[in-house]
Amino acid sequence: MKLLGAIEAGGTKFVCGIGHEDGSIIDRVSFPTTHPEETMAQVFQYFEGKNVEAIGIGSFGPIDPVIGSPTYGYVTTTPKPFWSQYNLVGAVREKIDVPIGFDTDVNGAALGEYKWGAAQGLDSCLYITVGTGIGAGAVVGGTLIHGLSHPEMGHIYVRRHEQDTFAGACPFHGDCLEGLAAGPAIGSRWGRPAVELAPDDLAWEIEAHYLAHALMSYVLILSPQKIVMGGGVMKQSHLFPMIRTKLQELLKGYVQHASLTADIDSYIVPPQLGDNAGLAGSIALASMALAGK
Amino acid sequence: MKLLGAIEAGGTKFVCGIGHEDGSIIDRVSFPTTHPEETMAQVFQYFEGKNVEAIGIGSFGPIDPVIGSPTYGYVTTTPKPFWSQYNLVGAVREKIDVPIGFDTDVNGAALGEYKWGAAQGLDSCLYITVGTGIGAGAVVGGTLIHGLSHPEMGHIYVRRHEQDTFAGACPFHGDCLEGLAAGPAIGSRWGRPAVELAPDDLAWEIEAHYLAHALMSYVLILSPQKIVMGGGVMKQSHLFPMIRTKLQELLKGYVQHASLTADIDSYIVPPQLGDNAGLAGSIALASMALAGK
Repeated sequence: MKLLGAIEAGGTKFVCGIGHEDGSIIDRVSFPTTHPEETMAQVFQYFEGKNVEAIGIGSFGPIDPVIGSPTYGYVTTTPKPFWSQYNLVGAVREKIDVPIGFDTDVNGAALGEYKWGAAQGLDSCLYITVGTGIGAGAVVGGTLIHGLSHPEMGHIYVRRHEQDTFAGACPFHGDCLEGLAAGPAIGSRWGRPAVELAPDDLAWEIEAHYLAHALMSYVLILSPQKIVMGGGVMKQSHLFPMIRTKLQELLKGYVQHASLTADIDSYIVPPQLGDNAGLAGSIALASMALAGK
Repeated sequence: MKLLGAIEAGGTKFVCGIGHEDGSIIDRVSFPTTHPEETMAQVFQYFEGKNVEAIGIGSFGPIDPVIGSPTYGYVTTTPKPFWSQYNLVGAVREKIDVPIGFDTDVNGAALGEYKWGAAQGLDSCLYITVGTGIGAGAVVGGTLIHGLSHPEMGHIYVRRHEQDTFAGACPFHGDCLEGLAAGPAIGSRWGRPAVELAPDDLAWEIEAHYLAHALMSYVLILSPQKIVMGGGVMKQSHLFPMIRTKLQELLKGYVQHASLTADIDSYIVPPQLGDNAGLAGSIALASMALAGK
């Protein structure tokens, strides 16, 4: 079977791996994201002699994923030191001459869950990660969403929870979804990390409120056949039933579909690929690149 | 050139027409939407002897556009008397044995603008109508958005304008976008029809606030390459510059793209197909059906 390379380029760490076209992963390593030169040297060292036939890169953003654009393949306006306007695809291409797939980490994860995970056999799905930041990617009619650039679904505005007085932590928008509901926002609002809060703490009621409001917009705009929720904050599994109930309250029965009523427990789910969702997503991007898509 | 039939099935009126695969329309009639039997009799009378090779139907909703579903082709849970659970495609198929394309009126209009109008040459666009109700359709990577069913973008929640005390008029959600910003909501809030309000009335500042908030979500979730705004309320053309400015204020420069900065005047535009956007959309649906897509 053909060997595919995967790079999950995160703002905190890089994960590199090797896998097959069936989504299986046979090797993985990870190292901290530091200066591009240092980090990329580790990437090249890892892939040396591995003979991969394509590489998929699921990257932190914002990025330019638009093929034909002068800055295609770049990490663009990230506040992360040294990585702004960094030509990530160009750097890889210079060292490893194989087809390269490039997209956001969350579009990659959405593609992975669509091909091999929770959304297998469907033609649409949404993947959202709630962690240090909030991001989401989506497959529509078998295709990843692109347009002007890529989705930035973590920055939509949501209605404030009545009991929430926290100002919001997004450096751009203040109290957008990410500013109110990402891990650091929870930590700042309550003065301690989210993991230290009891499951019946008001913190989770507020968190579920914001995430359900986000899902309401995603459902009404994209009508995805499956919603996969990953990331560190979603390890708090008691959030899932709370989010499902709140989403139903918001929809008020307007969209008639069993996935939103009787079957909602299998509609909003954790990643089936677990902690490999990101890396498998990059394998999926490599597989698409190999197929010339 | 092949003759294509178009049915723009609206909640107030039906428009039927004949056109070609280049989007040109050579004939059109319209009549009020009454009882299905009466209205459909007029549809069949119109198409008799016209020898169309396919028919496209852009319908008011909610509908079931999912091919293979037991209720495919139905108008589903509409509050409109007599039309709930009406098998619209089935009724047409019984009388006219040609390929039939079926989608929401707004998905049809989005497809029309994508093929022949404001979004020609791009691979994504969003069409929103603001009139008696609010609805939107979108093309992503050349494909209309479907999933569980079709988008219901008019019912997203948006942040309230600080000076707005109107409760909202949506029978399902109260103060969702449609409940706050459709024509009837404007009329109820101010005690007179929108057309009677002066361009510098606070009404328009509030209207632009809600529509810009909706566009903020659409842009961050779909990243469309063009936004086309039609419908009765958007005939108030002074809304366009207000919406553009407010959207830029909300984005705060987060998404870096000329379409959202220097070129925003050509990014958010009225339908290029004008009042034919809906009918041309149905022609586009017919054309897709003929091609077997």
